[in-house]
Amino acid sequence: MLSNRLTTKAAAPLTMDRCMTGLKEKTNMPASTKGNGWSHVDTVQLNSSKEDLPETDSFVQQAMTLIMDEVVRKAGHVSGKVCEWRSPEDLTKLLDLELSEAGEAPAQTLQHCRDAIHYSVKTNHPHFFNQLYVGLDHYAMVGSFVTDATQPSLYTYEMAPVHCLIEKVVLEKMMEMIGWVEGGDGIFNPGGSMSNMYAMNLARFQRFPEVKEQGLSACPRLVLFTSEECHYSVAKAAAFLGIGTKNVYVVPADQRGKMIPKELEKQIRTAISEGAVPFMVNATAGTTVLGSFDPVEELADICEEHNLWLHVDACWGGAALLSSKHRHLLKGVHRAHSVAWNPHKMLMAGQQCSAFLVRDKTGLLKRCHSACASYLFQEDKFYDISCDTGDKSIQCGRKADAFRLWLMWKALGTRELERRVDHSLEMARYLTEGIKKRDGFRLLMEPEYTNVCFWYIPPSLRKIPESPEFWQKVEAVAPKIKERMMKTGSMMVGYQSHGVKPNFFRMIIISPWVGTKDMDFVLDEIHRLGADL
Amino acid sequence: MLSNRLTTKAAAPLTMDRCMTGLKEKTNMPASTKGNGWSHVDTVQLNSSKEDLPETDSFVQQAMTLIMDEVVRKAGHVSGKVCEWRSPEDLTKLLDLELSEAGEAPAQTLQHCRDAIHYSVKTNHPHFFNQLYVGLDHYAMVGSFVTDATQPSLYTYEMAPVHCLIEKVVLEKMMEMIGWVEGGDGIFNPGGSMSNMYAMNLARFQRFPEVKEQGLSACPRLVLFTSEECHYSVAKAAAFLGIGTKNVYVVPADQRGKMIPKELEKQIRTAISEGAVPFMVNATAGTTVLGSFDPVEELADICEEHNLWLHVDACWGGAALLSSKHRHLLKGVHRAHSVAWNPHKMLMAGQQCSAFLVRDKTGLLKRCHSACASYLFQEDKFYDISCDTGDKSIQCGRKADAFRLWLMWKALGTRELERRVDHSLEMARYLTEGIKKRDGFRLLMEPEYTNVCFWYIPPSLRKIPESPEFWQKVEAVAPKIKERMMKTGSMMVGYQSHGVKPNFFRMIIISPWVGTKDMDFVLDEIHRLGADL
Repeated sequence: MLSNRLTTKAAAPLTMDRCMTGLKEKTNMPASTKGNGWSHVDTVQLNSSKEDLPETDSFVQQAMTLIMDEVVRKAGHVSGKVCEWRSPEDLTKLLDLELSEAGEAPAQTLQHCRDAIHYSVKTNHPHFFNQLYVGLDHYAMVGSFVTDATQPSLYTYEMAPVHCLIEKVVLEKMMEMIGWVEGGDGIFNPGGSMSNMYAMNLARFQRFPEVKEQGLSACPRLVLFTSEECHYSVAKAAAFLGIGTKNVYVVPADQRGKMIPKELEKQIRTAISEGAVPFMVNATAGTTVLGSFDPVEELADICEEHNLWLHVDACWGGAALLSSKHRHLLKGVHRAHSVAWNPHKMLMAGQQCSAFLVRDKTGLLKRCHSACASYLFQEDKFYDISCDTGDKSIQCGRKADAFRLWLMWKALGTRELERRVDHSLEMARYLTEGIKKRDGFRLLMEPEYTNVCFWYIPPSLRKIPESPEFWQKVEAVAPKIKERMMKTGSMMVGYQSHGVKPNFFRMIIISPWVGTKDMDFVLDEIHRLGADL
Repeated sequence: MLSNRLTTKAAAPLTMDRCMTGLKEKTNMPASTKGNGWSHVDTVQLNSSKEDLPETDSFVQQAMTLIMDEVVRKAGHVSGKVCEWRSPEDLTKLLDLELSEAGEAPAQTLQHCRDAIHYSVKTNHPHFFNQLYVGLDHYAMVGSFVTDATQPSLYTYEMAPVHCLIEKVVLEKMMEMIGWVEGGDGIFNPGGSMSNMYAMNLARFQRFPEVKEQGLSACPRLVLFTSEECHYSVAKAAAFLGIGTKNVYVVPADQRGKMIPKELEKQIRTAISEGAVPFMVNATAGTTVLGSFDPVEELADICEEHNLWLHVDACWGGAALLSSKHRHLLKGVHRAHSVAWNPHKMLMAGQQCSAFLVRDKTGLLKRCHSACASYLFQEDKFYDISCDTGDKSIQCGRKADAFRLWLMWKALGTRELERRVDHSLEMARYLTEGIKKRDGFRLLMEPEYTNVCFWYIPPSLRKIPESPEFWQKVEAVAPKIKERMMKTGSMMVGYQSHGVKPNFFRMIIISPWVGTKDMDFVLDEIHRLGADL
C-alpha cells in the first residue's frame, strides 16, 4: 500500500544547479480542475522523492565532512585562531550575501558554509572565555543534529513522543538536584530571559489569578525585588509583562555582589508603605559579571514571612548543584518556588538549553499559560493527554532542547558532569592565584564561581598613585587590549565597567579541556598585548 | 605563541567509556593555592584537546552516518512509516531514559540516537500532513548543522559577525517582499507566538511609552482586536503582557473565516463607549485551521481612521508573498505596522525560523526592549555598535535562525521558492477536486491556501439524514481514523472540531516533493481506515 512512489517513471536528467527542485511531470489537467480560475494547473503526478536525488545526498555528505573537518577537528584546536576579525564593512564585502532570483550550484552553497565557519567565532576554542557559554560538548552537538534532522515540536505527545518523555526525565533529574523531593513541574524554553519571564508571570498569577483575564489595569501596583547585580532580563521581563521597570525595586548588594537581606526587608517595607503590593523576589545564583550567589536561605526566610514568591535565577550558577564540593553556594534553593537553570552555559549542552522549574504540583504552570487550542489539544485523543505539554508554554512550536542535555548526561554520567564543574572552579582558583602573583594584575575580588574579574595595569601606569586620573587611564586599557586580541585572534575575554569600577576583564572558565597552561597563557597574552599601553 | 598545547605529554591510555573526560595529570599544587580552603586542588597542567581523542571523532562520525542513513535517506522515503506509534507507557519501557551516576560506552549513546530517530515522527515523510510545518529542506538542515556546531549567539557583532550581517540581509529581503520600499526593522525569534508578543508590546509602547517604566497599572484599560479565527497565541500574548484575555475583543469572521471589517468597527465603537482604549488590530494572513486571509486592505483603512497599530500575523500565509500568482491573498500587507512571518512553516526552513518585522525606522524596536547591559553592549567598542542587535530582543542569547533560510535561499533562488509555494497550492487544489468527486468526502469550504478541511462520512452514515444525531456520529469518525493511521503509521493528518463544526480533517500541504498520487493516497487511505465505521 505504501509503495506507490516506487513506481515512478524515469526522471529527466538533472542539472547540478537545479537538483533540489524535484522532478516535474506535466500531465493533463484533471477534468475537474478546469475552469476554476486556476490557469495552467501544473499537476505533478509523482515526484521523485528528494532522497532519490544523488546530488542532494552528496551535498549533505560534503557539508557533514566540512563540519567535521573545520569545526569539530580544527576550530577547537589551540593552534588555530579564536576569531578571524573583520569589520562589518569588510565582512560584508567578503561574504556573498545577496539573495537572488536564480539558485546556485551546490559547490557555491558549500562555500557559503565554509565562509560562515571561517568568519565565525570559534566558541569551542580553548581560549574562548568571552561569554557564559562555550562551544558545546560533542554528545550535545550530536543531539542537536538529531533533533534538527528529525524536527520534533513539543506541543503534543503525538508529534514528539520521544522528546515529551525525555523532557520529563530531565526536568525530574534537575528537580532532584535542586532538592525538591516531591518533584514539581517545568518546561524547557529558549533562554534564561524567558525563564525569568515565566517566573514573573507565574508569581503574579498565583497571587492574582484574575490578571490572566482582566489584565493589570484592574490590579494594584505590583512590585518585585532583585539585587543590583541581577541579570538585565529581570528588567526586560518587567517591561514586557506590563509590570514596568520602575516596579522592579533594586536591592543593594554587598562587596561580594550578594543581595543584602536587610536591604531587601527595607525595600519591602518601602513598597508596602507606598501602597504597592510586593509579590516576588528574584535571587541570583551566579551573577553575570561577578559570579556571585545571593544568600538564598536568608532570602527564603524573608519571602516566607512576607508571602512572596521566591524565584532563583540559577541560569549560570545552577551547575554547582552537581558538585558536592560547591553546591553549598546555592544553599536553600530547595525553598524557592521556581528556578531558572541553563545547562547550555556551564554544562555545555548547546544553545539553547534552558529549564524553568517550578515547585508547584497543582498544574499552576498550565493554568497560567493555557489557551486550549482545539486543533492541537483535542480532548478526544486516544492516549493520555497529560503528556501534551504544549499548553504550559507561551510558545506554540517548541524545540526539543532537553534531548542534547539528556544525551550527554547518558554518555558522561552525573559523576563526570560533577568532575567538569569542579575542574572549572579549580581552574578559576588557579587563575586567581596567578593574578595575585603577577605584577600589573589586580583582582576585583576572590571569585566564588568561575568568573574571575581583574584589571591589567600596564607598566606605564604602575608607578602612578591611585587617583581618579589613574583609574581613568585604567578604564581605557581593557577595550584597547580587547581590540588587539580580537584582531590577533589569539583569545577572547570579555570586559566591562561595573558600577563605579572602571573597565576590567571578566574571565569565564567553562570547558573541561582547558588546563593550567591555558590560564597562564591568558595572563601572558594580556601582558603581551597591553605592555606598551 | 599559540602552540603550547602541542607540547603535551603523552596521554595515559583511554578506556572507551571514559573517552570524553579529558586527560588529567595530577601535578603538585602550586604553592600559592595552598591553605586557601581548597583541598586536593587537582590542577590540570595540560589537557589533551578533545579533538585529539580518536573516540570522540569516531562517535561524531558514526552519528553523522546514522543521521544520513536513518533520517536523510530512509525517514523521508515513502516506503517507510510516518510514525512508529507507542503509547507513553510502552515507549517509557522501550527507551532507556534514566540518568545515572556513571557514563556509558559511545555505542550505547549511539543506540539512544537510533532509538530517538526510530520512535520520532518522520516529519520529512511525504505523507506527513499534520502540522503547519514539515521536515526541513536539506539546505536548511545543513545550515542548522553549521550553526549548531559553531554556536553563535546574536547579541553582538563581536560574537556573531557572520550572522548579524546575514540576519539583516534576510530581514531586508522579507521587507522587500512585504512591500516596505523604505525598509524597516526586525528580528528573528523563537516562534510566531513570540512575534505576536513583540507586535503587541511594540503597539502598546508606541502609544504609551511610559508603560515600559510605569507598567500597566498606571494606564487606562487597553483593548486589541482579532478575529475569532486567529491563532491562540494572541490570547496567550495578551495574558502574558498583562493586558488580559478579556481585553482581546474577538471579531466575528465570515463563512470563509475572514474577519468582517464592519464587525471590527462595531467592536472598536463598543470598546470606546466602555471607556477603554483600543490600540491594535491583529489581522491573520493564513489562519491555522481554515487557512483564511483577513482582508488586510480594508482593515488598514479602519486602523488608519482610528489610529490603531495594524499587525499582520502572516506566520503561515506569509510565504504567499513569494508567489506572483498568490500574493494577492495578502493585499494591503505593506500598510501594516508589523508583520510576523515564519519561514519554518511553508518554506521549510527548519524550526524555529520566525521573523518579526516592523515598518518603523526610528529605532522603536530597540527603544521598546533595550536594557543596555554593560557587559554586552559597551559603548567604547572599536566597531560600529549599530551591528549589535541584541538589545532589540527580549532574549539574551539568541540563535542564528536566519542562516538556514539564507542558505537555502542562496541555493534555490527566489524563483524556486516561488515554484514551491505554487506547487503546494496546486496540490491543495487537486486534493480539493478529489474530495468533491469522491463519495463520502465533504469539503468544509473551498480552500484559499493549502489547508484543505473536509469530513469523511463512512458508508454506514451516508444514508442517514443530516440531523444532530448524524453530526454526532460524524464527530466520532475523525478521531477513530486518526488513531488507526497513527497505529498503522501510514500517514499523519490532523483533525479538530471548530466552532459548531464537528471533527473534520485538516490537511496541510507544504512539501514540494508530494504529487497528485500522494493526494490520491490520502483519500484512499482515509477510506481504507474508516470504511467500517
